[in-house]
Amino acid sequence: MISPVPTLAAATLHFLEQTLGAENLSVTNADREYHARDQSFHHAHLPAAIVFPENVAQVSAILKHAHAEKIPVTAWGAGTSIEGNSIPIAGGLVMDFLRMDKILRVYPEDFQADVQPGIKYKDMNAKLAAQGLFFAPDPGANASIGGMIGNNAAGTRTPGYGATRDNVMRLEIVLANGDVIHTGTRSKKTSSGYDLTHLFIGSEGTLGVVTQATIRLHPIPEHFSAAVASFETVADATRAVSAIMGAGLNPVALEFLDVATVRELNTTNEFHLRENPTLVIEFHSATAQAIEHELALARELCQDYACLSFEAGVGRAERDRLWKMRHSTYAVIVRNHPGVSFLICDVAAPVSKYSELVAACEAEIAALNLPGASIVGHAADGNAHPLVPYLPEDEASHARALTALGKMVRVALALDGTATGEHGVGLGKIPFMRQEHGASLDVMRALKNLLDPHGILNPGKMF
Amino acid sequence: MISPVPTLAAATLHFLEQTLGAENLSVTNADREYHARDQSFHHAHLPAAIVFPENVAQVSAILKHAHAEKIPVTAWGAGTSIEGNSIPIAGGLVMDFLRMDKILRVYPEDFQADVQPGIKYKDMNAKLAAQGLFFAPDPGANASIGGMIGNNAAGTRTPGYGATRDNVMRLEIVLANGDVIHTGTRSKKTSSGYDLTHLFIGSEGTLGVVTQATIRLHPIPEHFSAAVASFETVADATRAVSAIMGAGLNPVALEFLDVATVRELNTTNEFHLRENPTLVIEFHSATAQAIEHELALARELCQDYACLSFEAGVGRAERDRLWKMRHSTYAVIVRNHPGVSFLICDVAAPVSKYSELVAACEAEIAALNLPGASIVGHAADGNAHPLVPYLPEDEASHARALTALGKMVRVALALDGTATGEHGVGLGKIPFMRQEHGASLDVMRALKNLLDPHGILNPGKMF
Repeated sequence: MISPVPTLAAATLHFLEQTLGAENLSVTNADREYHARDQSFHHAHLPAAIVFPENVAQVSAILKHAHAEKIPVTAWGAGTSIEGNSIPIAGGLVMDFLRMDKILRVYPEDFQADVQPGIKYKDMNAKLAAQGLFFAPDPGANASIGGMIGNNAAGTRTPGYGATRDNVMRLEIVLANGDVIHTGTRSKKTSSGYDLTHLFIGSEGTLGVVTQATIRLHPIPEHFSAAVASFETVADATRAVSAIMGAGLNPVALEFLDVATVRELNTTNEFHLRENPTLVIEFHSATAQAIEHELALARELCQDYACLSFEAGVGRAERDRLWKMRHSTYAVIVRNHPGVSFLICDVAAPVSKYSELVAACEAEIAALNLPGASIVGHAADGNAHPLVPYLPEDEASHARALTALGKMVRVALALDGTATGEHGVGLGKIPFMRQEHGASLDVMRALKNLLDPHGILNPGKMF
Repeated sequence: MISPVPTLAAATLHFLEQTLGAENLSVTNADREYHARDQSFHHAHLPAAIVFPENVAQVSAILKHAHAEKIPVTAWGAGTSIEGNSIPIAGGLVMDFLRMDKILRVYPEDFQADVQPGIKYKDMNAKLAAQGLFFAPDPGANASIGGMIGNNAAGTRTPGYGATRDNVMRLEIVLANGDVIHTGTRSKKTSSGYDLTHLFIGSEGTLGVVTQATIRLHPIPEHFSAAVASFETVADATRAVSAIMGAGLNPVALEFLDVATVRELNTTNEFHLRENPTLVIEFHSATAQAIEHELALARELCQDYACLSFEAGVGRAERDRLWKMRHSTYAVIVRNHPGVSFLICDVAAPVSKYSELVAACEAEIAALNLPGASIVGHAADGNAHPLVPYLPEDEASHARALTALGKMVRVALALDGTATGEHGVGLGKIPFMRQEHGASLDVMRALKNLLDPHGILNPGKMF
């Protein structure tokens, strides 16, 4: 790895000030501390300075300089990652895209937009709503688009609309040496050349820095519906998931809440849920009539797997009411258990293995004997998020939580799954890369060395 | 480029015979001629020999030897490509996957299967139908799965189900030096490491050779419907396409036939179509009731753009009847014009530019003053296939057709489109790669040099 750069030489600071203007460069302690951590439990590391480029030419000039001088550069969006993905562990520069946050152009007939990486997901969708359009992958947090591309972020709506990977068409990228390239096309279909767009998506800023993206949008649906179904066992719930997908129903979202999560939610006296494994299902429909048929078929399929209850709601307000529950989980659990902290684990496996994955994770977190241990997940994608409790002032407790997390990852891998469904590798998942990828990890490293021979881009991540 | 290898040394032949068995090696003229051409107009080139590996160990041993001895190796599936993608222009070995043609395992609850590259698309779907499943990307021809992965093949069903790229989860790949790697995961979601799977899909056998793939399947739908709508102008038809996509209707297929194509079809006295720009639309629905609503909404949207007729059919038989027309076009046109040959052009642009693309293509092919000039396309993807007529015995005529083809590609690129929507680069689209990709072509070439430093894999393609 590149040598750490805790402070910058005067000549470098001078170069940066000349390139960016003094107002786009910061070495204040406040700015350095803010850019030293993400939302994970991983240790903070101070960058030497933060740059706020305003255009691709500045990004290119800075990288060219950093490449020549071997200065680490870590791209920064909103700081909402939860595997340490954006922590500048070798110091150097954090490149914050705060000032490259525009929607440059909307193509309404093509359901596309050109955007800058610093724009935040929720802010962007609020603007796009005026044209009846939205960017579908929903990471939960108000992440930046650049960060979502770096992480291949996904979320509750991925069953219906795909992950970030499925919703990016073109990228403008500055390579480690400052070269600017453009990948992909606005054409929905292409078989032209190597698929560099997908190579850079999910590379966590280690192969290049995204300065512009053409994203795929969807029309805001006319008709919403949602349903909450509870089951005797996780296995029944999982089989209902397979049946719903197999019937061609195309739910937009299909979320799982384990019994512990449901019990936590019931402490609020707001939701009055059956304390059983639960699915939350959402449909977006082209016609009002379609909703009824979709809900009726979903109910029938859930009943085939002995669902204990099936509560459906039609319309946006009803949908929002049912989703409030899902979106409240983390806040409710944290509030219910003061003094306990949580590692948020991200593992995924094929849907047929989901109940096995959930059972193994439940056993691991229960063995910690701390309150708040619970699991939510994106069931249609086989993605589970165990909340792993630990006592923040107790190192042994933290170590036990980490051990449990590692065991859950290895279970996922043994089930033909992956070490990370949507949070990325960052710092937290590096130990599992060889087991997951085998010899292809060497190909990944060779690509990294080819495109970033001095290792300046987000050092210490992925490998 | 690697030096051509028109014949093999005795030691190499001996090695191949030892590795494969004599029955899996051929140097007969019949086999060499069969593997010298694809279905395009590109010139044939004889390979020195053909190998028929039976397993990954044999593929690895052959590539290791070829890498050391600098012998070209071109992977071969069904020979159905139409840009010269599989023509062994540097001689050497053709590696025909005829004997690696099995479905190894089906995961019915996960809608996935592990398959070998030599299995043919139609044969595979015939087998999968017993389990109610199918592989959705339909390239038209009975291509091999390995070839479809190499080309990122797509077709009429891509609006509903995506291209091959969207339907492959894992790959087993043998690199140029014989190393075997595994990419991807059976988990539907992953953010783990660089996306090597997508890098190899569409690389036309120039970066590695696929020996196994985990493909994504879909349940065979319960309810089919189709409609044929004719419009006064191509622009009206295109706007109807945008409206249908914007309404969230999710058609499985949305095909375009220009007036010339419709006139050709009417010569058969079978279809009785209005001689106007025409769309053919297909829906797959989860419930019988949904069909009626989808067709009613589609009709309404087509009427918003002044459609002249809208004929709908419900059920598989009706769907098949309407599709027969679309699938007959090439055969009808060839039969109608004996003595005329056709280049099949493949260009794509954003949907909003589709009428402009079609108009430019119509002008180019009309200027050739030969019968049979016509355009069909996958309208929802902005993909157009002009049939470019020429006289096969007249070199000047062939040259004029190629010039017209080049102009159409440059129009597509000027419209934010791509040189190839689904046929791949092969030999035919190489001249347009720099214009389309700019500096990222250099990155592609660097990846090629990294993974195949001696240039043995499908030499002379892509670059």
